[in-house]
Amino acid sequence: LAADKAHAIKAVAIVHNETSTGVTSRIGEIRRAMDRAGHPALLLVDTISSLGSIDFRHDEWGVDVTVACSQKGLMLPPGLGFNAISQKALEASKTARLPRSYWDWQPMLRDNQAGFFPYTPSTNLLYGLKEALAMLFEEGLDNVFARHARHAEATRRAVQTWGLETVCQHPLEHSNVLTGVMMPAGYNADHLREVILGRYDLSLGTGLGKLKGKAFRIGHLGDFNDLMLAGTLSGVEMGLAFAGVPFTRGGVMAALDCLTGK
Amino acid sequence: LAADKAHAIKAVAIVHNETSTGVTSRIGEIRRAMDRAGHPALLLVDTISSLGSIDFRHDEWGVDVTVACSQKGLMLPPGLGFNAISQKALEASKTARLPRSYWDWQPMLRDNQAGFFPYTPSTNLLYGLKEALAMLFEEGLDNVFARHARHAEATRRAVQTWGLETVCQHPLEHSNVLTGVMMPAGYNADHLREVILGRYDLSLGTGLGKLKGKAFRIGHLGDFNDLMLAGTLSGVEMGLAFAGVPFTRGGVMAALDCLTGK
Amino acid sequence: LAADKAHAIKAVAIVHNETSTGVTSRIGEIRRAMDRAGHPALLLVDTISSLGSIDFRHDEWGVDVTVACSQKGLMLPPGLGFNAISQKALEASKTARLPRSYWDWQPMLRDNQAGFFPYTPSTNLLYGLKEALAMLFEEGLDNVFARHARHAEATRRAVQTWGLETVCQHPLEHSNVLTGVMMPAGYNADHLREVILGRYDLSLGTGLGKLKGKAFRIGHLGDFNDLMLAGTLSGVEMGLAFAGVPFTRGGVMAALDCLTGK
Amino acid sequence: LAADKAHAIKAVAIVHNETSTGVTSRIGEIRRAMDRAGHPALLLVDTISSLGSIDFRHDEWGVDVTVACSQKGLMLPPGLGFNAISQKALEASKTARLPRSYWDWQPMLRDNQAGFFPYTPSTNLLYGLKEALAMLFEEGLDNVFARHARHAEATRRAVQTWGLETVCQHPLEHSNVLTGVMMPAGYNADHLREVILGRYDLSLGTGLGKLKGKAFRIGHLGDFNDLMLAGTLSGVEMGLAFAGVPFTRGGVMAALDCLTGK
Repeated sequence: LAADKAHAIKAVAIVHNETSTGVTSRIGEIRRAMDRAGHPALLLVDTISSLGSIDFRHDEWGVDVTVACSQKGLMLPPGLGFNAISQKALEASKTARLPRSYWDWQPMLRDNQAGFFPYTPSTNLLYGLKEALAMLFEEGLDNVFARHARHAEATRRAVQTWGLETVCQHPLEHSNVLTGVMMPAGYNADHLREVILGRYDLSLGTGLGKLKGKAFRIGHLGDFNDLMLAGTLSGVEMGLAFAGVPFTRGGVMAALDCLTGK
Repeated sequence: LAADKAHAIKAVAIVHNETSTGVTSRIGEIRRAMDRAGHPALLLVDTISSLGSIDFRHDEWGVDVTVACSQKGLMLPPGLGFNAISQKALEASKTARLPRSYWDWQPMLRDNQAGFFPYTPSTNLLYGLKEALAMLFEEGLDNVFARHARHAEATRRAVQTWGLETVCQHPLEHSNVLTGVMMPAGYNADHLREVILGRYDLSLGTGLGKLKGKAFRIGHLGDFNDLMLAGTLSGVEMGLAFAGVPFTRGGVMAALDCLTGK
Repeated sequence: LAADKAHAIKAVAIVHNETSTGVTSRIGEIRRAMDRAGHPALLLVDTISSLGSIDFRHDEWGVDVTVACSQKGLMLPPGLGFNAISQKALEASKTARLPRSYWDWQPMLRDNQAGFFPYTPSTNLLYGLKEALAMLFEEGLDNVFARHARHAEATRRAVQTWGLETVCQHPLEHSNVLTGVMMPAGYNADHLREVILGRYDLSLGTGLGKLKGKAFRIGHLGDFNDLMLAGTLSGVEMGLAFAGVPFTRGGVMAALDCLTGK
Repeated sequence: LAADKAHAIKAVAIVHNETSTGVTSRIGEIRRAMDRAGHPALLLVDTISSLGSIDFRHDEWGVDVTVACSQKGLMLPPGLGFNAISQKALEASKTARLPRSYWDWQPMLRDNQAGFFPYTPSTNLLYGLKEALAMLFEEGLDNVFARHARHAEATRRAVQTWGLETVCQHPLEHSNVLTGVMMPAGYNADHLREVILGRYDLSLGTGLGKLKGKAFRIGHLGDFNDLMLAGTLSGVEMGLAFAGVPFTRGGVMAALDCLTGK
């Protein structure tokens, strides 16, 4: 950015929580780096898989556009998308020349003033959203975030005990929403996932892109508690045994120790 | 029975699976003992908590009246009761003088011939029953019974590893539906149950009668799988730690080993 | 009662709303008649099909035992029964010698003090009951009763217009919960019901006992509104035409006029 | 089209069923007119509010792109969109220069070959779709279309009896999905809608654009039967009376006569 004296760069676009790997970006620090560079680029953040699970501060972090959705931390089926938009982004959109139609903010802002949608709204999901928000606020957002952090920590303890590695290597960027796990060389992650789905009715995430077959992902987000995590990790531990993957037993016990504060 | 030369005893009444302790009676052997005594008493069996979870053979075992319900192995809300009745019991009921009204078989048998009920039937539960039976037959009754047996065995391994005792002492009479667990002397089972319910949203059964406060019960029946059992046992193991009950860690790991055939 | 100087009669037992005919008894007047006779008999009232639909006053009318249930005006599946019991009835039950077991009040009263049930309670129906009561109180019981009265009046206008007779003949005893309708001589009510069920997916009540085949019943209770009544009466009016029953068109229009206050 | 010798016109885009007015276009005849003109324009048809309710023939009518959705005749919540695409349209899309991203066919066609979606699919709606299609095929598409036609005809009879006019004036283009109704001059349609919603919990469609306040719309599509139509029309007839709109009583009766074949 510092090198971009002509301000040709219009926006810094970043994913808050990278679903395919289990890496969480430090948005606040990125904002501070942009500020230090004194660059006017907009900050656009994808919070698809973090909102409602990991702390995120649109205003405090000076984010210009936050993109979110219904189907992750908000615990709903897919079907709703949300944008939080700064005044600066709104201004920029007036002169922007990128094509847009359905995603244009103006018809939405205009109709929302009278309580309407410009298109057919997903009414049933709006009722669901009302309830999802009530659940989050009843638990308390700080408690929700702390719960996700505890489950992520316990999961990493299990992975470590099994003698496996997490995809994420940076200690400050482990995701609290999911944990990507590398397979030992020569063992196929999708075969393991198939064994676990067939035996335990437990669906793990596949490795994406260059991690295809080499990693699998354990989700620990949303309407989730300690015993669901224990069940999930038990499924992975038993699946590793059945699939003939070399590993050290005791991951679940390590996770339970972590959850009980040992 | 052999001593009852006058046949004053009219019936042998027995519970197939004793819910309050986790003990399963050997109905077939009881039948054979009755036969050896040559006594004409009716054999009445309560299968409330066994039907659909533990093998039971009304005809083969010569049971005269089997009493069952909707809310255990049939996986429904409470609200339906079932009776299987031998010809001998039906005959006996015609001359019996015990008072009865709602529970009388005759109006039910009469109206059922035309497909009706003598009283307002619980129609919604009948739809549920249809689906529950479809689920049981899709899995296969033998598989259902084997699944319950595996889960009971794994649970006992966990209990043994924790250094606790099961309420049931007879190796041939352990229940496949639930496991009653004795607390160490001086520790209150209901306090443990309260800790586990509060922390893990896991509701264990209380000790009943003289076991009040001295034992708790782990259910492992119905629509239940390996990971639900792992989650359940994890809740007990963590709860024992939080409640300060002396125990040995590793019960969950022992159960997982059992489930994976080690 | 006046003739029963020896007080051999122990109770006056009466149905508040007779479901099989559509007749509502005047409980308050019966109470006053009992009082005038100075007779100590208990007053037992079955409110199975009236509670929550027609005004009923256990205390004000001096009823000793009120019997009610979940599946009519309380808008739930069958499965719950309720008793309201006067001190006098409770006293009487202590010396009564009629056999009872499941229906005995004592175990229920004893366990309820600690918030328990003596038997497996229908927990899901208790949650439903909570919601049903919330619905009734949100609408307001007076409004609920007035709504049932309006629908009953509109239904009778339709029946009158069709040239048919209601089963109930006494103008003070028409039920607000259902209307029994007599078929013209020579036409079978069950055939009409079959036609209407097949064509319109509308299930009418059958005539019971000596009314079998001679009358049908239109229910207008519970979670029910003006348009559901209009749809129901439209089904009957079209069904009468299809079944070839002689009648005069315009019943639905008369009902709509009634509902709009003409 | 005949005048467009240079073929500057790339596509004829048309709505099959116009939701805002209740007018159905004759797609087959439009196709034939295009063929007579010998013009190569693509035929693009919006079947949002017709598919599953009014007969539509993508192949037989030579439609190039059909656009459909989940929330009308397929009886689901909003959230799914469908495209049927001719080979000719697919070819044209390869050289077309209109911007597109989410709506691009290529990623969808590519991933669908392996049974995947390029984006997060609305899995729950796909389960719903499976059931909706089963319902339509169980009834039979011809019966479904005939049912919609009967209900539309009965609705028009009611409107005519009330002395009101339908928005659609062309006898060949009345919609079978909804009927737009003009208010008498000086009476506000949205006031009538408000009265009906408040009194009868019946939500009618508003007039859109230049019909705002001057027309309302009665929907009669999807999972809908004779008695639901009777209830709907009864709500309108009573609402007209309460709102003080001049009209002639008897619309519901005329509709019932129509439904019974008179």
